[in-house]
Order: sequence, then C-alpha cells, then structure tokens
Amino acid sequence: MGTMSDAGKKRRGGHEGRRNARLKAPIVHRGTLVRNIPAYEAVSEEGVELIHNTAMRIVEEIGVEFRDKESLDIWRNAGADVSDERVRVSREMLMSLVAEAPEEFDHHARNSDRTVRVGGKNMVFAPSYGPPFVLDFDNNRRHATLEDLNNFQKISHMASAIHIAGGPIVEPVDIPVAHRHLHMAYSALKFSDKPIIGAVTARERAEDTMSMMKIVFGDEFASNNTVTTSLINSNSPLVWDATMLDALKVYAANNQAVLCSPFSMVAASTPASTVGTMAVVTAEALMAIAFTQIIRPGAPMLFGVPAMTVDLRTGAPVHGCPESALLQLLTGMMARRYKVPHRGIANCSTAKTADLYSGYDSMWGAFSAVLAGANWITHAGGILESALTLSYSKCILDYEQMDAFYHFAQGYKFDDLDEIFETVREVGAGGHFLGAAHTRKSDIFILEHQNNVTFEQWDAEGRKDAQEIGTEEAKRWLARYEPPPIDPGLDEALLEFVKRRTKELPNRSE
Amino acid sequence: MGTMSDAGKKRRGGHEGRRNARLKAPIVHRGTLVRNIPAYEAVSEEGVELIHNTAMRIVEEIGVEFRDKESLDIWRNAGADVSDERVRVSREMLMSLVAEAPEEFDHHARNSDRTVRVGGKNMVFAPSYGPPFVLDFDNNRRHATLEDLNNFQKISHMASAIHIAGGPIVEPVDIPVAHRHLHMAYSALKFSDKPIIGAVTARERAEDTMSMMKIVFGDEFASNNTVTTSLINSNSPLVWDATMLDALKVYAANNQAVLCSPFSMVAASTPASTVGTMAVVTAEALMAIAFTQIIRPGAPMLFGVPAMTVDLRTGAPVHGCPESALLQLLTGMMARRYKVPHRGIANCSTAKTADLYSGYDSMWGAFSAVLAGANWITHAGGILESALTLSYSKCILDYEQMDAFYHFAQGYKFDDLDEIFETVREVGAGGHFLGAAHTRKSDIFILEHQNNVTFEQWDAEGRKDAQEIGTEEAKRWLARYEPPPIDPGLDEALLEFVKRRTKELPNRSE
Repeated sequence: MGTMSDAGKKRRGGHEGRRNARLKAPIVHRGTLVRNIPAYEAVSEEGVELIHNTAMRIVEEIGVEFRDKESLDIWRNAGADVSDERVRVSREMLMSLVAEAPEEFDHHARNSDRTVRVGGKNMVFAPSYGPPFVLDFDNNRRHATLEDLNNFQKISHMASAIHIAGGPIVEPVDIPVAHRHLHMAYSALKFSDKPIIGAVTARERAEDTMSMMKIVFGDEFASNNTVTTSLINSNSPLVWDATMLDALKVYAANNQAVLCSPFSMVAASTPASTVGTMAVVTAEALMAIAFTQIIRPGAPMLFGVPAMTVDLRTGAPVHGCPESALLQLLTGMMARRYKVPHRGIANCSTAKTADLYSGYDSMWGAFSAVLAGANWITHAGGILESALTLSYSKCILDYEQMDAFYHFAQGYKFDDLDEIFETVREVGAGGHFLGAAHTRKSDIFILEHQNNVTFEQWDAEGRKDAQEIGTEEAKRWLARYEPPPIDPGLDEALLEFVKRRTKELPNRSE
Repeated sequence: MGTMSDAGKKRRGGHEGRRNARLKAPIVHRGTLVRNIPAYEAVSEEGVELIHNTAMRIVEEIGVEFRDKESLDIWRNAGADVSDERVRVSREMLMSLVAEAPEEFDHHARNSDRTVRVGGKNMVFAPSYGPPFVLDFDNNRRHATLEDLNNFQKISHMASAIHIAGGPIVEPVDIPVAHRHLHMAYSALKFSDKPIIGAVTARERAEDTMSMMKIVFGDEFASNNTVTTSLINSNSPLVWDATMLDALKVYAANNQAVLCSPFSMVAASTPASTVGTMAVVTAEALMAIAFTQIIRPGAPMLFGVPAMTVDLRTGAPVHGCPESALLQLLTGMMARRYKVPHRGIANCSTAKTADLYSGYDSMWGAFSAVLAGANWITHAGGILESALTLSYSKCILDYEQMDAFYHFAQGYKFDDLDEIFETVREVGAGGHFLGAAHTRKSDIFILEHQNNVTFEQWDAEGRKDAQEIGTEEAKRWLARYEPPPIDPGLDEALLEFVKRRTKELPNRSE
C-alpha cells in the first residue's frame, strides 16, 4: 500500500524485497475519506418514492413491534398508536422525528487526529463484527480468544484505510460473556487510538462502555459528544427486542451513535425481492431512528442493512450475490432521501477459506458499498462463513483492498491536463511515459500484495498464493506493531474499572 | 446457476447433490443482456468535454501515426494532413466520420437464435483472448494446445451468460502460427454456434476468416452483414501498425465489426493519469474508427480500452487496480458521447493461480465494466498472469460470476410492490417469508458454486476450495458437452478449406 512516489522508485526484487522495504516505512493513517465520485443512483426518484410510500404504509397500517415495556411507554407518551407491542405512527410524525437526527457528525477518538466525520460525502471503514472463530496462522479454524481480538485491534490500528478500532472484531470466546464487553472496550482503547464500537448485549454492558468512555473523555464531554458507535439489529420482520432497545436507549440518551440495522435476509426474514426488502427494512430502521429522537433529539443514528439473501436449499445466509449489491446500492439512496448516514458492509464471504470465491463474494460487498456512497462500511476485512470466522490472511488482504477503494473513491484529477498534453507532445508517437516528469510525480496506486512478478520469479519464490502471503504478512504486521501512546494514569484507571466490574458482574453465560 | 423457482425447491444435501442435479438440467443460453440499471456517470459532462477537447487537440496538433502506406494514401485522399506517417485531422472531419459508425448493430451467429445485438443498452459477454498458457486440470501451467482451445470453445458454448464463441480463447501453440487462424475459426464454428471472433495477425488471415464466413453465410450475406467481430490494438502512444491496419481494412471493407482498442498501460504507454490516458486513447480509437468509415461508411466499430496500469517496480502490466476501474468507467462515458459501442474487459488478474487475489483483481474489472454499461465485455473468464495464462477452474467460476452480473444488470422490479405489502401484512412481525406464495415464485439468484454449506459439511466433503471445485466442474462440463448441430456439408466445406489453405500457406513462425 503506497503510491509510486513513495514506494516505486526502484526495483527491489520481488515480494520479499518489497515487503522488507515496507517494514521500514512509517505507518500511514489516512483521514476520513471524502468521496469525490458520485454515488450511484441505481433507481429513479420515482422508484425511491414507491419504496418510501410502501415503508410508510407499513409503519401506518402494519406497525413495528417494540418488545420492551419502557420503549412502548416512550412511544405512547410521544403520541404513537400502541397496541400490545405493535407501534404504529403516521408518516408525518415519523418523518418529523427522523428529521431531528443529524446528517453528519464527528465520532471522536481518544487521539483527536483519528476522529472521523460520519455522513454526507464522508466515508469511514470499520473492522468486522462478531465472528466467534478465527482462521489462524496455521490456517486452522478454532474459537477466537482475547489474544486474537487484541491482535486484530493491532492489525486494524496499523491498516492505512481502516478508521475504526472496532468492538468485537472477533468474539473473545475465552472470556465469560458477562465480562467480554469490558475487555472489548479496553482492547480497543489500549491497542488502538481510533474511534471505538460499543457493547449492546445488555443494558448494563452499554452503561459500562459509557463509564469507560467517561474515564477517557470526562463525564461532560462523553455525554454530549459522540465517542462510541454501536450496532443494533432488529429481528426482521418488524421486531425490535428488549436487549437491543435497552442498549439503544443508553446510547441515545448519551448522544452516542448507533447503526440501526435490520437483520434482513432477503427471502427469509424479509420479502424475496430487493425492492420489497428495502421497504420493510426502511420501516424498521426509521422506527428505531425516530424512537431515539424522542429520547434525545439530535442523537446521531445510521441507517444500515447487512445486505444478505438466504440460500433456500440450506437456509444459510448468503453474501456475495447480485441481490446483496442491489440492496446495498438502494439503501444508499434511501438513506440520502432521509438525510441520515448510511452504514454499508464490505468483504463478507460465505467461503470456508480465503479462496477465489471469497474474493468474488467480498467484492460484491465492497464495490457496492463504495458506489452506494456508504458513510460507514463495516466488515472491511477478513470475513468468511458469513461472519462466523475471521481469517488473519484475508483480513490483511481485504484491508489492502479498502486502501485501493480509498484511492478509487477520490476519483479523477483534471487539473494537470495541460501539462499532460505537453507531455504527450514531447513523448510523441511510439515513445513511452516511464521517464516523463509528469509520471515521476504521479500517484498511481500500488497494491503491495498483488502478484506482479513473472511466473518464473513466483516459482523461484516458492509459488505462494494469496492465502500464504496474507498469513505471512499478518505475522509481520504483529511483529512490527507499536502501541499508540496512552497516559499511564488513564490506562490504570481503565484496568481498575475492568477489574472492579469483573468482580461485581455475575459470570453469566449469555 | 439458476433461480430459486427452478432449482431451490428442496434441499439436496451439499455441493455434490446440487451438481449432480445440475448435470441433468438443460443448458440455458441467455440472450443479449438488456441493461436495466443506469450506467454509472463517473464524471460531469464538463469533465467529458475537457477530455474530448484534449483528444481533439491531439488529433489536430500532434496527430496519430498510421504505419502503412496504403492507409496513409486513404487518409490523404480523404483530405487529412499527412506528414511522413503522422496523420492530423480537424475535429470537424473526425467527428463527421465517427458519426457514420452505427450506434447499434447485430452480430450474426450461424444459429440465428444466438445472434447478439451490440450497442445502446445491450451487453454481451465474450471469452478471453490470446493466452498462450493454460493452468490445466492438474493445476499445471503449460503451453495451450488446439485441444485446449476446443475445450474452451465447448465450455464457453455451455456457459449461460457467455454470448460469443471466441477466437483465440487460448493460443493453440501446437499449431504453426501461419495456420492457427484456420483452426481458430473452425473451432469456434464447430464447437459452438455463437457469434465468432476474427483473426487479425495478417491481412491474409483476415481474408481467410472472411472466406470461411462466406462458406457459412454465403458471399452476399457475409459481405453486408456483421458475422465477425475482431480485435485490433494500437501501439500506444499514437501508433497503428501495418499488420493491424491490414486486418482492419479487410474487415471494414466487409462491413465486419472491429474492437478498436488502444493497448494502453497507464504510466508506460500512456500518461500516468486516468484522465490523461483517456484523452490519448480517445484520440487513438477515434482515428481508427474514422479511418474505417472512409473505407466503408457504416461499418460497425467499437471503442475499447484494455484498462491496465504498469507496475513501475517490475514493468509488468497490472489489472485489478483502482485506476483500471476508473479508466473503464470513463471509457463508457466517452463511448456514449461519440455514440459508438463500448468494449470493456472483466475478470483479468495478475495472479499466478486462482487464489483470493485473482478474485479481487477480476472483480475490479467485472464490476466496473458492467457499471460502465460496456456493450461488449471481453476476458469474461479464466484470465491469470495478465492474459498470459487461462485457468480452467477460474474460467468456470468467472463465467458463473458473469451470470450473476447478468442478473444484477437487470436491476429492480417494482411491479409486485402491492403484493409484497400484503405478504408483509400476512407474515406479520416476527414471522418469516420462506413459505409465502410470493417467495415461491421469486427469482433470487443462486450461485451454484458458492460455498453455502456449514463448515462441518464442507469438512466432510473434503474441504475443497474454489480452485478444486472449478477444476472438477470444468471436467464435468466437458464430459457433458453436446455439440450444436451443424450441417454435414457445411462442416465438410469448412474442413476442406482449412486443409487447402494449410497446404498453400507457408509454415511461418510469426
């Protein structure tokens, strides 16, 4: 990962030489990506309005269930039509609440240089979320541990185009469920200085996350500024459960960002139609976003869909298929219509190993997320088995692809066309541009791990495929990792909090 | 490859079961794809005009070289400014010639059911072009033979979304160079009944191709209708050589289509800038297209760019990078501006084996070609080593991806939204759509070779990665192949022609 100007000036003899050179190069942390290519408008405005109208009919006529007494009281007090657990609102009420959510916001990092801007033309890339297994350095699949989580925090910290420290990049299965959130937040804050993801698996865990963020940022700042982004899923169709709502209430009350993500599987939990699914998930997501604005107007919320279908032969969730890309492109349009930031997903695969097919699958996600203009792209590296497993090898290589997309989304440069014309005149017919002054200062993107050597050289270097290269590189990255500075007093206070809460919290298994 | 309605009604127990079922299913030949999603407009109209203006300055002030006396005479007689081999024309003259080339045309196949429409919103997918090596069933890299070419004609014939029989899908290296074109045309006409690609490596070879097409279609029809599409490359920057021009003249005179493709490698043979490269290749391609319209107004021509950069560390051509996608998207816009069909490329990789990286690389091409609205997409399957090697395994799996893109480009369906709304009402909150009447008639796309089984089942089935699955499938396809009917008299006449010309032509080595 680099540009011609900083990495390409002389030949270094194959992948080994290049990688050794790179080990000495400084780590680059790219800022928030500001998209300079248009978002792809996949359907007409009329199409968007048809979906909107169907979503509005759903919230008005069918309603969405909030399976939590407190949430139902909040809705009732706000004037919604609440019947059992079903909440129906008028489109006017819904739109007026959604309009309170900000179009853009800052998500602060403990190192202010790593603070990102979310929304508008801004894009941030975030690690995976939730895999309980890893494909390790020996390409063995095993349960993920806290050490793996720490490793992936380190790798994500070092990846140029990854903006977010991540929460459960993998699930640390060796830690009791009731204590995982503490270690998850500590891991993100210790091994990275990028913005972090909050815990959502119980109200007290969201509160603990907020307590730790208040240790880092101070009470006042952390209650009024966004210092975490968390992910809640609906149970499609049309259900928000108590656990997710509890977390949502805690974060919204603290002005923290939440990815309001229907867990839609086209043809299973939502209709067997991209357009129909879009209508259902729009209803679900907007109801969650509107709900937060009753609690705290202006709390930042994202509209996200983990674009998936289902394989009707096996019941398995499917990424990397045409419908997933069509859905993601459409979600971008709907989010823009409602002026809320859009959360997309990249690099998810159903494959069991980092093979050719896992590359296809990943790109259906990455390409459509980037062209959708998604403001927050989750699962930016390493996913296999539809998020059951995280591969060290694929994570490194996916992250490099996100760096390429970072370059891609910066689009076209027109300001040097006159100089180029003069260069073409000088080079003339049949010449070449390799030595031209214009070429030497250009920024053609170089994929460090792409295999651009000859077959013979590749053969001599041991015929390594991408899976092997990625694994080797993961080891090199970890060997090279240097922790970002952290105030020792802060570190101690965080550890103290983790220790105290570990004692206080029962060792529950859910 | 199939849809839920024809393949998904019951579980069949893993990949084996599914593939066995598929072996019994009829082969589907999809017609010309009519794109139902918008082309992606990557830059503003102003940007397009800036590039156009620079291209016009190149043809007016710098000129393009035609290294062939006859071609120079043709230009001179048409009123161009010819100085040595450099041809300069006014933008008015160039635009008026280019306007003669058709926006759309039919490319006829010997089976009229396989005739394709090229241009406008139509898209056709074509096989690879030119690799001298194959990665065979044992994953060994070796020189390609006529048997390999025949095999790939068979595979391409059977692939649902591949519309073209192909010319040198691989180079049959066991056949003398001077005779290859004869076997190439015969292979395409015998083992497929889809439209074919012509030979361009010498004037007499183009003429032989036309003679064979006249045997198939009759003199009159083959001279006035498009029955071949051929590929010529410029020597960027700004040079068309005599060999390519000789072939171009033969095909244009016979009203045959040609992909006028600058062989641009960004930063080497064209400027180190996507926009600058676009200006140079626009000048090159338009000059070739204009040239053909002097010879035969109305001869169908395509504007194509094999989007590549160069790795400045090794000099190697690079596919699968952000610039290649940016260039391809831009080429689509320029082609639409000039109202000539656009030839894009998909599924090219620099990798040495069908690994994860070859998947990324391929998708940078495929996704950008499809979103560019390319009317003709070459290299739709199997390419490794930047077109030096064709992989049987990757070819099968890439072709399946093109089938997925075929589905993708058909976009969104809005006409069942009312039925969907009623289905959502019936299913209600917390239900599922698996058994709904709407679901049963839906057409969610299923990737047959995507690994959607559990890890445990994958383990029990021998932990096959995509490379292995693709290789097995290639063998199955070939075992299952049935040749399309061919009139025995026609077959005999073609063989007779090949035999006669083999005797007549000197066994040259170039």
